Amino acid sequence: MTDSLDVLIASHLDAELVDAIAAVDQRVRVRYAPELLPEPRWSSDHVGIARQLTPGQHDRWTELLAEAEVMFDFDWRRPEQTLVQSPRLRWIQATSAGVGTRMEALGLRRSPVTVTTASGVHADPLAEFALAGLLYFARGLPRLIADRADRVWRTGPASELAGRHAVIVGAGRIGTRIAELLRALGVTSTGVVRRPRRVAPPYDDVITGQALPDHLRRADILVVAAPITGETRAMIGAPEIASLPRGALIVNVGRGTTIDEGAMIDALRTGRLGGAVLDVTATEPPPRESPLWTLDNVILSPHSAAGVPWENAKIVEIFVDNLRRYLDGRALRNLYDHEAGY
Amino acid sequence: MTDSLDVLIASHLDAELVDAIAAVDQRVRVRYAPELLPEPRWSSDHVGIARQLTPGQHDRWTELLAEAEVMFDFDWRRPEQTLVQSPRLRWIQATSAGVGTRMEALGLRRSPVTVTTASGVHADPLAEFALAGLLYFARGLPRLIADRADRVWRTGPASELAGRHAVIVGAGRIGTRIAELLRALGVTSTGVVRRPRRVAPPYDDVITGQALPDHLRRADILVVAAPITGETRAMIGAPEIASLPRGALIVNVGRGTTIDEGAMIDALRTGRLGGAVLDVTATEPPPRESPLWTLDNVILSPHSAAGVPWENAKIVEIFVDNLRRYLDGRALRNLYDHEAGY
Repeated sequence: MTDSLDVLIASHLDAELVDAIAAVDQRVRVRYAPELLPEPRWSSDHVGIARQLTPGQHDRWTELLAEAEVMFDFDWRRPEQTLVQSPRLRWIQATSAGVGTRMEALGLRRSPVTVTTASGVHADPLAEFALAGLLYFARGLPRLIADRADRVWRTGPASELAGRHAVIVGAGRIGTRIAELLRALGVTSTGVVRRPRRVAPPYDDVITGQALPDHLRRADILVVAAPITGETRAMIGAPEIASLPRGALIVNVGRGTTIDEGAMIDALRTGRLGGAVLDVTATEPPPRESPLWTLDNVILSPHSAAGVPWENAKIVEIFVDNLRRYLDGRALRNLYDHEAGY
Repeated sequence: MTDSLDVLIASHLDAELVDAIAAVDQRVRVRYAPELLPEPRWSSDHVGIARQLTPGQHDRWTELLAEAEVMFDFDWRRPEQTLVQSPRLRWIQATSAGVGTRMEALGLRRSPVTVTTASGVHADPLAEFALAGLLYFARGLPRLIADRADRVWRTGPASELAGRHAVIVGAGRIGTRIAELLRALGVTSTGVVRRPRRVAPPYDDVITGQALPDHLRRADILVVAAPITGETRAMIGAPEIASLPRGALIVNVGRGTTIDEGAMIDALRTGRLGGAVLDVTATEPPPRESPLWTLDNVILSPHSAAGVPWENAKIVEIFVDNLRRYLDGRALRNLYDHEAGY
């Protein structure tokens, strides 16, 4: 390990979080110049409003990138130049859980740069969102809301989530947190995993993708919480959607391209699908003419269901732990797996 | 115990449930005449459409009531005559959890007739409904739904339920099930009980009504899941509502008269309260001119959130267990407490 470690903070962070990073070790030299970064629109915004830099500021950012051995978040200005503009770079701590598409786009996929993800941080808020949407449809809130507005008092049997069965594509932290909450509510789950593993709670069953078609037939709920890889892209096509039971609910908190969106829209339109709870879509935002905007059985969240205000504090917790590991030469947590693609 | 026990089924039950009751013991003589009972509008409907009986049918029902030693559900025809028309009656198994108002109306409150409730059966579906409504407001679904309809893609920080604090008035089975689910989601709870008891999960704190005013100040969520008694009637008045933090959410799955409805409506109108999730109201249905019909931050369920299709199967489970206890001379479960009033 060198005497000093240049750590460049590449997205906006509150002062106390910057201090927490600096306090890890005296060798850490934190470089944080918020005036050179996109302006956050809210706490823990990792995109922000791109900033017009003066020539002097441009040079300063170029210098900081050139010196960085560690980066917190990807470069916002010319990320595709990362390997060229940051020759000393060894490690990037990302602020999202899924970095697969980014790795390819930035040419990092087969580079020696280590990337760690924010996997785990988003599990709680995304699972909460999934549950909110599932309960909204399962408990018939759309009808209650319409009846109230129409001054209709329609007593009748209540529908419930308990007793249903969910198939969860992507049994990582997000999918597993969803399975946990569903289990607490009396919903059973089948986890769909990449490599066979032992069945353990919160799953009642674990299968690989090959067995998926058989299991979809009894999936009252289909949850997509998988990273995008060669295997998951377009994994849920028209045949898969057609084999779901009538009235099934779909949740997507993974990536939009895992699902054939046209086929899903058709099934939502005819009512074969009961509802869709989407934090992601194939294109974001969906094109203006997309029926997703007009379907009443769709809950559409602008890919920000995980973006709770304390998000950065949780990501910095991971980063601080990893920074200690890095300085000690130990293995990092949340390593991006170049082979698996997530 | 007598040689035979006349058990009168006074609301509609599926044949297999009637059989399960008959199978408890050979002494049990089940009397079930669905043609003399209100017609159920759905499975497990305990009100139904009142039936016009012929004179002969009237006599038959009068006879059955006169012979009954045990009744499953209250008489639907002239319940206020219960003590007169059923002189042999010793025990009524009710089909609802809260029977307090009924006990008074039927003159049973100080009678020697034992009443057992269906307490416990409704906890799961009511807790699910409470959670559905809380997540609907906490996760900002109304805005997501409006934005979709307006084709607005508004990224921004997500609000969540996790980290909030709930005060639960009525820490019985329904309130406790709600506290359990909230705990799974990272929400802490204070249970409000009648007599002091030891703090234990799912509660983080247990208080009596006297301490309520102090605790309401930090109640992001106020849940009413209490029976109606002298103590709980109008327990949540204007001062209590005023002391809740701005944006607080109210859930009522107990009885409408526990809350000063006018004060709640005022606070919902100004936005001081973030939302209300109501399965019960002071008058049911609310009068046509009630603002409850027009407030967008109200979810109004027609006192049927507990009425899931398997409700009767669960109630019969309790009844069958109690019938065994009754025949053995053991204490019954779910006894209505004449003193406490629930």
